[in-house]
Amino acid sequence: MEASEILRRVAAGALSVGDAEAELNAVYAPPFDDLGYATVDHARKARTGASEVIYCAGKTTGQIIGVMQNMLSRGTQNVLATRAAAEVFAEVASAIPDARYSEAARIISVERRPEPRSSAPVLILCAGTSDIPVAEEAFVTADFHGCDVRRLYDVGVAGIHRLLARLDILEEAAVIVVIAGMEGALASVVGGLTSRPVIAVPTSIGYGANFGGLAALLAMLNSCASGVGVVNIDNGFGAAMLAVKIVKNIGK
Amino acid sequence: MEASEILRRVAAGALSVGDAEAELNAVYAPPFDDLGYATVDHARKARTGASEVIYCAGKTTGQIIGVMQNMLSRGTQNVLATRAAAEVFAEVASAIPDARYSEAARIISVERRPEPRSSAPVLILCAGTSDIPVAEEAFVTADFHGCDVRRLYDVGVAGIHRLLARLDILEEAAVIVVIAGMEGALASVVGGLTSRPVIAVPTSIGYGANFGGLAALLAMLNSCASGVGVVNIDNGFGAAMLAVKIVKNIGK
Amino acid sequence: MEASEILRRVAAGALSVGDAEAELNAVYAPPFDDLGYATVDHARKARTGASEVIYCAGKTTGQIIGVMQNMLSRGTQNVLATRAAAEVFAEVASAIPDARYSEAARIISVERRPEPRSSAPVLILCAGTSDIPVAEEAFVTADFHGCDVRRLYDVGVAGIHRLLARLDILEEAAVIVVIAGMEGALASVVGGLTSRPVIAVPTSIGYGANFGGLAALLAMLNSCASGVGVVNIDNGFGAAMLAVKIVKNIGK
Amino acid sequence: MEASEILRRVAAGALSVGDAEAELNAVYAPPFDDLGYATVDHARKARTGASEVIYCAGKTTGQIIGVMQNMLSRGTQNVLATRAAAEVFAEVASAIPDARYSEAARIISVERRPEPRSSAPVLILCAGTSDIPVAEEAFVTADFHGCDVRRLYDVGVAGIHRLLARLDILEEAAVIVVIAGMEGALASVVGGLTSRPVIAVPTSIGYGANFGGLAALLAMLNSCASGVGVVNIDNGFGAAMLAVKIVKNIGK
Amino acid sequence: MEASEILRRVAAGALSVGDAEAELNAVYAPPFDDLGYATVDHARKARTGASEVIYCAGKTTGQIIGVMQNMLSRGTQNVLATRAAAEVFAEVASAIPDARYSEAARIISVERRPEPRSSAPVLILCAGTSDIPVAEEAFVTADFHGCDVRRLYDVGVAGIHRLLARLDILEEAAVIVVIAGMEGALASVVGGLTSRPVIAVPTSIGYGANFGGLAALLAMLNSCASGVGVVNIDNGFGAAMLAVKIVKNIGK
Amino acid sequence: MEASEILRRVAAGALSVGDAEAELNAVYAPPFDDLGYATVDHARKARTGASEVIYCAGKTTGQIIGVMQNMLSRGTQNVLATRAAAEVFAEVASAIPDARYSEAARIISVERRPEPRSSAPVLILCAGTSDIPVAEEAFVTADFHGCDVRRLYDVGVAGIHRLLARLDILEEAAVIVVIAGMEGALASVVGGLTSRPVIAVPTSIGYGANFGGLAALLAMLNSCASGVGVVNIDNGFGAAMLAVKIVKNIGK
Amino acid sequence: MEASEILRRVAAGALSVGDAEAELNAVYAPPFDDLGYATVDHARKARTGASEVIYCAGKTTGQIIGVMQNMLSRGTQNVLATRAAAEVFAEVASAIPDARYSEAARIISVERRPEPRSSAPVLILCAGTSDIPVAEEAFVTADFHGCDVRRLYDVGVAGIHRLLARLDILEEAAVIVVIAGMEGALASVVGGLTSRPVIAVPTSIGYGANFGGLAALLAMLNSCASGVGVVNIDNGFGAAMLAVKIVKNIGK
Amino acid sequence: MEASEILRRVAAGALSVGDAEAELNAVYAPPFDDLGYATVDHARKARTGASEVIYCAGKTTGQIIGVMQNMLSRGTQNVLATRAAAEVFAEVASAIPDARYSEAARIISVERRPEPRSSAPVLILCAGTSDIPVAEEAFVTADFHGCDVRRLYDVGVAGIHRLLARLDILEEAAVIVVIAGMEGALASVVGGLTSRPVIAVPTSIGYGANFGGLAALLAMLNSCASGVGVVNIDNGFGAAMLAVKIVKNIGK
Repeated sequence: MEASEILRRVAAGALSVGDAEAELNAVYAPPFDDLGYATVDHARKARTGASEVIYCAGKTTGQIIGVMQNMLSRGTQNVLATRAAAEVFAEVASAIPDARYSEAARIISVERRPEPRSSAPVLILCAGTSDIPVAEEAFVTADFHGCDVRRLYDVGVAGIHRLLARLDILEEAAVIVVIAGMEGALASVVGGLTSRPVIAVPTSIGYGANFGGLAALLAMLNSCASGVGVVNIDNGFGAAMLAVKIVKNIGK
Repeated sequence: MEASEILRRVAAGALSVGDAEAELNAVYAPPFDDLGYATVDHARKARTGASEVIYCAGKTTGQIIGVMQNMLSRGTQNVLATRAAAEVFAEVASAIPDARYSEAARIISVERRPEPRSSAPVLILCAGTSDIPVAEEAFVTADFHGCDVRRLYDVGVAGIHRLLARLDILEEAAVIVVIAGMEGALASVVGGLTSRPVIAVPTSIGYGANFGGLAALLAMLNSCASGVGVVNIDNGFGAAMLAVKIVKNIGK
Repeated sequence: MEASEILRRVAAGALSVGDAEAELNAVYAPPFDDLGYATVDHARKARTGASEVIYCAGKTTGQIIGVMQNMLSRGTQNVLATRAAAEVFAEVASAIPDARYSEAARIISVERRPEPRSSAPVLILCAGTSDIPVAEEAFVTADFHGCDVRRLYDVGVAGIHRLLARLDILEEAAVIVVIAGMEGALASVVGGLTSRPVIAVPTSIGYGANFGGLAALLAMLNSCASGVGVVNIDNGFGAAMLAVKIVKNIGK
Repeated sequence: MEASEILRRVAAGALSVGDAEAELNAVYAPPFDDLGYATVDHARKARTGASEVIYCAGKTTGQIIGVMQNMLSRGTQNVLATRAAAEVFAEVASAIPDARYSEAARIISVERRPEPRSSAPVLILCAGTSDIPVAEEAFVTADFHGCDVRRLYDVGVAGIHRLLARLDILEEAAVIVVIAGMEGALASVVGGLTSRPVIAVPTSIGYGANFGGLAALLAMLNSCASGVGVVNIDNGFGAAMLAVKIVKNIGK
Repeated sequence: MEASEILRRVAAGALSVGDAEAELNAVYAPPFDDLGYATVDHARKARTGASEVIYCAGKTTGQIIGVMQNMLSRGTQNVLATRAAAEVFAEVASAIPDARYSEAARIISVERRPEPRSSAPVLILCAGTSDIPVAEEAFVTADFHGCDVRRLYDVGVAGIHRLLARLDILEEAAVIVVIAGMEGALASVVGGLTSRPVIAVPTSIGYGANFGGLAALLAMLNSCASGVGVVNIDNGFGAAMLAVKIVKNIGK
Repeated sequence: MEASEILRRVAAGALSVGDAEAELNAVYAPPFDDLGYATVDHARKARTGASEVIYCAGKTTGQIIGVMQNMLSRGTQNVLATRAAAEVFAEVASAIPDARYSEAARIISVERRPEPRSSAPVLILCAGTSDIPVAEEAFVTADFHGCDVRRLYDVGVAGIHRLLARLDILEEAAVIVVIAGMEGALASVVGGLTSRPVIAVPTSIGYGANFGGLAALLAMLNSCASGVGVVNIDNGFGAAMLAVKIVKNIGK
Repeated sequence: MEASEILRRVAAGALSVGDAEAELNAVYAPPFDDLGYATVDHARKARTGASEVIYCAGKTTGQIIGVMQNMLSRGTQNVLATRAAAEVFAEVASAIPDARYSEAARIISVERRPEPRSSAPVLILCAGTSDIPVAEEAFVTADFHGCDVRRLYDVGVAGIHRLLARLDILEEAAVIVVIAGMEGALASVVGGLTSRPVIAVPTSIGYGANFGGLAALLAMLNSCASGVGVVNIDNGFGAAMLAVKIVKNIGK
Repeated sequence: MEASEILRRVAAGALSVGDAEAELNAVYAPPFDDLGYATVDHARKARTGASEVIYCAGKTTGQIIGVMQNMLSRGTQNVLATRAAAEVFAEVASAIPDARYSEAARIISVERRPEPRSSAPVLILCAGTSDIPVAEEAFVTADFHGCDVRRLYDVGVAGIHRLLARLDILEEAAVIVVIAGMEGALASVVGGLTSRPVIAVPTSIGYGANFGGLAALLAMLNSCASGVGVVNIDNGFGAAMLAVKIVKNIGK
């Protein structure tokens, strides 16, 4: 019910003042549950198109399971939890038997309601084999949200013909996620070769003057090719979420 | 002509070996002109959907005009030049009378061939009045590339009701560009309120521990809301180009 | 009128649905004016206890005057504008004759409604004479907001007896603002000598490994004395605003 | 006895020169004990309103216990020790049976003299569940010093309605401590919504371009909302001490 | 076969269109194998003079062995794998019995085809004994690629006569690799004493304001002596590869 | 008069309580003058062996002259003012005719009381001609304080024999000040060649990855030679003051 | 004369002890001139293959001319002076009429003795037109030292076919200097395409998160392609000197 | 024998050419031993007044023992080894039974020849108990080199009276070493209170915006008190060596 409808019913005597206040509250104050250690946002999917996601780092396993169970209790949303260690999953699986785990991506997921599938392909490129954990985090996240995800791994610029030989795969994609550590040059090269939006993910792969991924991050932000948006270092999840928002909302 | 067609014609005797070599060259080696001080990329629009753009900083006005005239000489592309001072435009206008200038955006443009218009709205938000030069760079760039661009300025989080009162404008957009200096919190707040992809532009507005925009940049990269891609500090141009690539290619 | 009262009047037929919607809007959506280049927040004083303040850096003088006139138009709030050059003030004074200017603080103010005075003293200390511009920005800001402000300048730790000789002035204060550049040690020393809350302002005074105030900023954040809150480098305004919020709200 | 009184008694022959020297010493040189590895400050509570606090990191358990016992030996002050591991507490508890431990906060406390309670509420907000250890350090510290402390956890800006729904809790507080990692936007949002002084605590929660809490720290220092003072990354203790100094001294 | 020859044969009917397409592919698209987790570049040696090298950090042992076996399968190249832990080698040795390991250098190598030896000496200097692991990485890499490598260890500037006494060794070298941590002054000193190109490798040896090798890195980049090229911190491998490219290609 | 003597006189009736309080004040609270914008420390020379020095950056010329005149008014100390532009000196010279100026060092000095000369030589080395302004700041400062100062300029490590040929000059010095920009290697080289304490001054000479002197600063802090103390970038004054404290106090 | 020969002559009575001492001095202590403000190194060419080069930044024009005249006075070396403003050259030209100036490179040169020419080509690539000043500094420096220098400008990765179309030019070079600002990806791409040693020069072209060239610098240091040595930001001179040392010494 | 004497003997036939060459070598090339992994500098004590010191981090225990035995073999110097873990000492003690170990300082020492004692006191202050490991490194180092070392621990500025009460101890010292973490303010305070040279040692004690000691380092470099020289973070050894060079050489 919108505010005007509520008021109309009050004017018509069809709604008491007390009930109307509660209804107004529902309009202006979307629902959440206060667990003490967490305030679970039950309106996030309606508002942003994706449920709240649990970032496991820094949380106790008890807190993680508590939030998951609360999210599932209303039956309206699926659960995704990132940066989850295998030991965390072991405990989660006892409490929530249909939870699944991708070890490569370090992601726990519970799918209770099938997510509608999108047909616009999301392509995930990574520069080297060492970048695969980040790439898999992106893969699992985008797949969970219903995307048609494709992968092309280890095509960094030290052997650029590996990419040039497969330019058609780039143009078939609706969005391209480019994941690279070290100097992160792959994002610029891809950006210069395609008409597709590029989401660049710097990784912390490397050492020394890499400074934990800073080198690739700065390189990607300064890309001489345009049409490149950057997410945090090692943030495969965030890149996938941006891709999801692009393919699921724009194409409508 | 594709490689297989060329070969077929050679086999059929319809194409000489010499001509075939030139044709193959055109397939594998897209055209460019070497001006000595510049190698103008005439294939960029075909490849990436947007012509080469001239970044004026660090170039002489003579070089800028030279590149513009070369680009226009083939009659296939328009010209956009960013970070152009008013004095540069004065000289450009003498050489190219139909060049136009946006002082707020510091952009010179020459439009010889009308760009097809997109109907998916691109919304440009900025946190404060001081961010307007960056916002205008984004506006002029997206408009030049055929987007339906809308603006909502000075809606930073210090007075968050200015944004909450107009959430409908957010959802009407296909893509939202969020421009903010200081602590850059607006990107996270918008990201948490909408299902639309967000392109965040940190600006150098601020002082002290702002470190030339670093504060907003790091904040945007670490956004707790997902679906946010970040471009370089003060890079209104880059944000617009990513928006263009999203709305013009995805919606097809 | 609160929401419940509005609803009651609607139920009683004393308010039409249309008028009620407008009233609800006023409750949930505080007022602002959209000038295109600025969205002036007319609810800020009611909400935060202090009117919106104009940060002049990066704004045209026309924009500054426009915002000032809009703020004054409703007759409910005074105007404070920081980081204003003398040339800006010259133009402002033509448009708004009762505007005043502190050159040392680079602040323009317009006081149309007398601010209630607080009796809890705010003490502003600075380490060296070179820190005075920042100290004066704090002084003018706190004075504008009705504080009883006191000053003690050039009492840095290289001659610590200058401070030790006047400890009584410290204890008389309700809040102490400590402003220091170079190594910023004064904040820790004051923090260790008093029971009063300390607001520390690092300044950019210094050179070399000072890195524009970073040295003092880090020192103040790492103070071994407790009860020290830090604001941005050279942010005399922000320190004063925190002091204002403390003395005007807590002491009630 | 003040210096003038001492002198008067000497002049009156009521005090010998030797005794007078000792008395003067007491005036100008407050008491401390030299344990070799520590110089325990027995005057800190009288001077700053709070006893010396033991920072356990980098100290041996023997040193920690030694300082605690010395502090307690004079019977005039309670003991608070931060950053204490559970193993440290185990040994402390053997030596000082009435010591208590908060595992969440990593704080050991010994309360021998009841601290007077303050009635001005201190509100502790945190953005996410992962920030709770820092929030609890603040909670235990403020509670130890007699504050009426309240908590609201996991109300970050990704789901801003969780905060907007409870604005009344903000205004009831005398001081608000805002704890957030990642981009730290919560401090600005709260600062823009309330008239209360805000103490912002950046946390190291996050990864990559978070750089151990630097992102949130810079964001908070550059807050576009005013009235925000910042403490060190993860410094829940320091934030609480500033809150204590505000509510216990200003409200008098 | 070059493109013109292919075309000629097509024109002569000696080559079918289908076969010709495959031949063209071979010209423009050098060979690689897609293992899913890796795209092995079989053209790198032909193109750059050195085979692809496996950077083991961040890869599973299974991936490392898989890439090695693929590389060896064509019988055209040797294998070098850097940053390999002893445990990795243990597994590799089971799968590839002729693999060898340098523990000091943390390098695994498999030599199936003898590398031609170069007679131009490469000299490896290091400043201190703690720099030896990096120096050995350089030694093994250069030796593997056929260089005549010489070593002079622990000749840092704190005892500069150790170097001055052996200047003849410097001039006998074709290229000098200088490895130093702490302040990295050795690169400048060597650069000022010799006519030979110097490749400088900063190491992470040191602590505090060394910042993981940043001090030496910046020093080497700012060398007041000319003729010094710098590689990444601790990158003995990279320094050796540059030396290899210099001595094996220039001297021809 | 010491405290015990004051008390004795009070006891003997030879001193009134009022006078005694003033005398005690003189013992515990050394003299200073409060000029509003400055609190001039008249006890600094007695306490630290050197008068207060005026750092001109950030001060108005009126403030500089005011502090100078106050310092000279008591007739007990000379005046040194650093970082003074030529225009500042022009005004100072009108007010204080015996003021002198070193343009190379940017120092104003007024010597009213001859400083006792020290015979322990202070040697000032600099790496390049561009470092001379910093070197002269050190020279003038040390000379003003009575040192026997010697200079050896442009002896950087790119031509190390320039230094090796004159090692005797090093050993004749009591203290050596080493001034260098770029990579700052000279400090380590000198530290390894001499038994004398070395005071290292990084300069901002250089560009790019020099980062305003950071490269030399880090290098000097990480010197592999021991016996090196470092001062701030470009701080010739500070280096000289440390040398003064060494030669004037230790040699007694 | 070597030391053994000197001794032999002394033993043979063919050389006096005094003369022998001078001869020994010449062996162990190469010649220099002390001008007070400069210690001109007359042995540098003999020792390092290249004369001392004057870095003009931070030097007075008088000092620059003085050093030039001293260098020329012995008739054994040419003069190169970098970072020279046009006004400096105007004064130099009055004193030294055969001095020449490259405005693009900001280099003054005086060639009195023809430098032997090398036939090994040095190729200078730059990514964009804005990088040309750095590229020209490299060009003039390498040309002055006798290299066969070639140029290919504006071939950055945003239009990578501009480079791929001319790979033959890369392989013809003995050494490749790659100059790029922004994200500096060109160095990695070139490194992956060639067997030639690559000298990478990051430039300060760009803005925001470029941080004055830091982005390109870190990218180049972290290149995933091997055989890349890096010099300081904007250091075209240094890159050329390393190329000179490679082609003039190795090829012998 | 000096060079002139050698020559004279050669001229007199009292020395053969071969022997003379060896003698010259001894003059110009001080002795060292090449162990392969180390080049032990046997001339360092003669040259710098202190033997080579072994920095154990990054060295194998075998290397450490090898260097120690080589140093002791000539019977002319004692041995000091810093940053040595207890397990390293266990092995050293087996090989060199008279080696001693300070666990607090992590230093191994072997004293075979008694060091002459200096009577000029070196005072070591530290700000907190957590700084003691660094302070003890300084203590053991200075004591090993013959200094009269005194200690005053835990006198940080949070309780500044602990220092003010003992100013006499400061003035009795010839040199003061000030060790502090967190904000490092103690160095400035001490520098402002004394005429003695101050050697400041920042420590890594602290967290968050301390950045591993950076906060204290920058503070100390920017000290507003003069006469302060700074060494690397946690470098108690280096501070002591500078103190040793001051008291043992200046006081002569």
